[in-house]
Amino acid sequence: MFGRVALIGLGLIGSSLGHAMRRGSIAGEIVGAARTAETREAALRLGFIDRGCKTAAEAVAGADLVILCTPVGTYGALAAEIAPALAPGAIVTDVGSVKMSVIRDIGPHIPKGVHFVPGHPIAGTEQSGPEAGFAHLFDGRWTILTPTAVADPDALARLTAFWTACGAKVEVMDPERHDMVLAITSHLPHLIAYNIVGTAAHLETVTESEVIKFSAGGFRDFTRLAASDPTMWRDVFLNNREAVLEMLGRFTEDLISLQRAIRYRDGQALYDLFSYTRQVRREIIEAGQETPLADFGRHPGADTHVPNARGGAARKGKASE
Amino acid sequence: MFGRVALIGLGLIGSSLGHAMRRGSIAGEIVGAARTAETREAALRLGFIDRGCKTAAEAVAGADLVILCTPVGTYGALAAEIAPALAPGAIVTDVGSVKMSVIRDIGPHIPKGVHFVPGHPIAGTEQSGPEAGFAHLFDGRWTILTPTAVADPDALARLTAFWTACGAKVEVMDPERHDMVLAITSHLPHLIAYNIVGTAAHLETVTESEVIKFSAGGFRDFTRLAASDPTMWRDVFLNNREAVLEMLGRFTEDLISLQRAIRYRDGQALYDLFSYTRQVRREIIEAGQETPLADFGRHPGADTHVPNARGGAARKGKASE
Repeated sequence: MFGRVALIGLGLIGSSLGHAMRRGSIAGEIVGAARTAETREAALRLGFIDRGCKTAAEAVAGADLVILCTPVGTYGALAAEIAPALAPGAIVTDVGSVKMSVIRDIGPHIPKGVHFVPGHPIAGTEQSGPEAGFAHLFDGRWTILTPTAVADPDALARLTAFWTACGAKVEVMDPERHDMVLAITSHLPHLIAYNIVGTAAHLETVTESEVIKFSAGGFRDFTRLAASDPTMWRDVFLNNREAVLEMLGRFTEDLISLQRAIRYRDGQALYDLFSYTRQVRREIIEAGQETPLADFGRHPGADTHVPNARGGAARKGKASE
Repeated sequence: MFGRVALIGLGLIGSSLGHAMRRGSIAGEIVGAARTAETREAALRLGFIDRGCKTAAEAVAGADLVILCTPVGTYGALAAEIAPALAPGAIVTDVGSVKMSVIRDIGPHIPKGVHFVPGHPIAGTEQSGPEAGFAHLFDGRWTILTPTAVADPDALARLTAFWTACGAKVEVMDPERHDMVLAITSHLPHLIAYNIVGTAAHLETVTESEVIKFSAGGFRDFTRLAASDPTMWRDVFLNNREAVLEMLGRFTEDLISLQRAIRYRDGQALYDLFSYTRQVRREIIEAGQETPLADFGRHPGADTHVPNARGGAARKGKASE
């Protein structure tokens, strides 16, 4: 499908893309750029790249497809660096969680004859680094492409085919709308998760060890999102500031109203909300975006048996230890 | 261990206790009370009770151990109903998520010669009803017992042995402290989850179908808690009002501070919090209270393979469908 693909950044998404390309025989050669020798060596050892480069400019030379897989805060400088080295006719894309800022930061650097189509796979885990990736991360998940008005239709079609071959379903969306939709489906949830974990850890009335011990009451569900990569998420909030502040304002407004219902013992208001929210999960499961298994299928026995689990992690997984 | 055990309420916790007692051969006879014939029949069919009763008073007659497994709002009336029928020397306990209100509501009804020891297993799933239970729900999880000053030491020891036989680890705690600890580890997380799902569903700028489609960005993690039983949770918030309002106040204070960091582009403050919260999850995993598998171990392929998955649910689990 592509002769040479350059992955700039070899973390969770970069490494998963490498594995997915191997699985689907999508690329003739996969070149990966990472600053540290450790990361490049891990990527070569795990076999999801053919060649490692220290700089992005070196990696993009002769590539038909260039995918930026680093935190969105790095994109401006990266685009300036790779611009002179991009091959004519190449497609440049990214996997950033914000799209307006990506267009602002990358767009102006793209040379004539090179096609820029921003993208965002709605998939991930709380783990980071080249060891975190796996081939099926994108299976059945959506990838949003946000081509600008001047985007080449052929480049868009080729990128759509690429993501489809990686297992994803593709949606084309206006970048501004993307940033609004993701603010509520991804950015606000992460912010809330980070916040409650911070609140719980800083109480003087309840110790951190009590929080950890009794976290199965619900708290632990939030810690997955709150364990996500800090640099990536700092950059998301700095670059989707307006949409996040808008969603956060609505969340707080609703929360204050819920607080009032508790204070004035309005059981009916609580019951009505709690009944309504139940069906949202049902719809997400029906849409194939969530596991229907109770408690995410996690329980002491299951942790050691889930297929494709990495040995080291699974061995520590028995809750009864 | 016990001759006859009466389960009052045959939902997720009642049914799981029934299955756990069967697994450990803990009870000579298990009697279950449920208002609807449908629930009693399901419990008999699933085999986790020996006999079904329409009223709680009928079920507790001759029981050595009585476990209230209904929403905490029902406890006062239930205690008044069963009091005259309780056998001398019987132990009465409960599984309610709040403990001060339970002592207030049940305590005064307990006859002389009957032992009341409140309890709370920190375990559950988002599913409800007699079909939702399974024997290993309590394995490796904590059950908190909150005996009052006048509690019989022998009754406490027997109840501790009971929960241990059900797979749980037992912690004895002051009821007031319990309500404070659970407010942050369980009640606030549920409230936040219900709230964000409500906010997302009522936006006019983003449609509900977009929220569902792109929920894999993080939102879906919250929907598990927000799918929990509405009656149970209404009762929790009405009965642990002060502690929840206190924790909610702190959460909001922290959130406003985070909002300010985003507004003023304070990347360092965001990065510091996001780095700190990461280690909390690590500690929860080390404490055996969470799966170490990335993304809770959920992915399109895994859903159909997790052991003990009920067939109906698992068949719908393929995200690629």
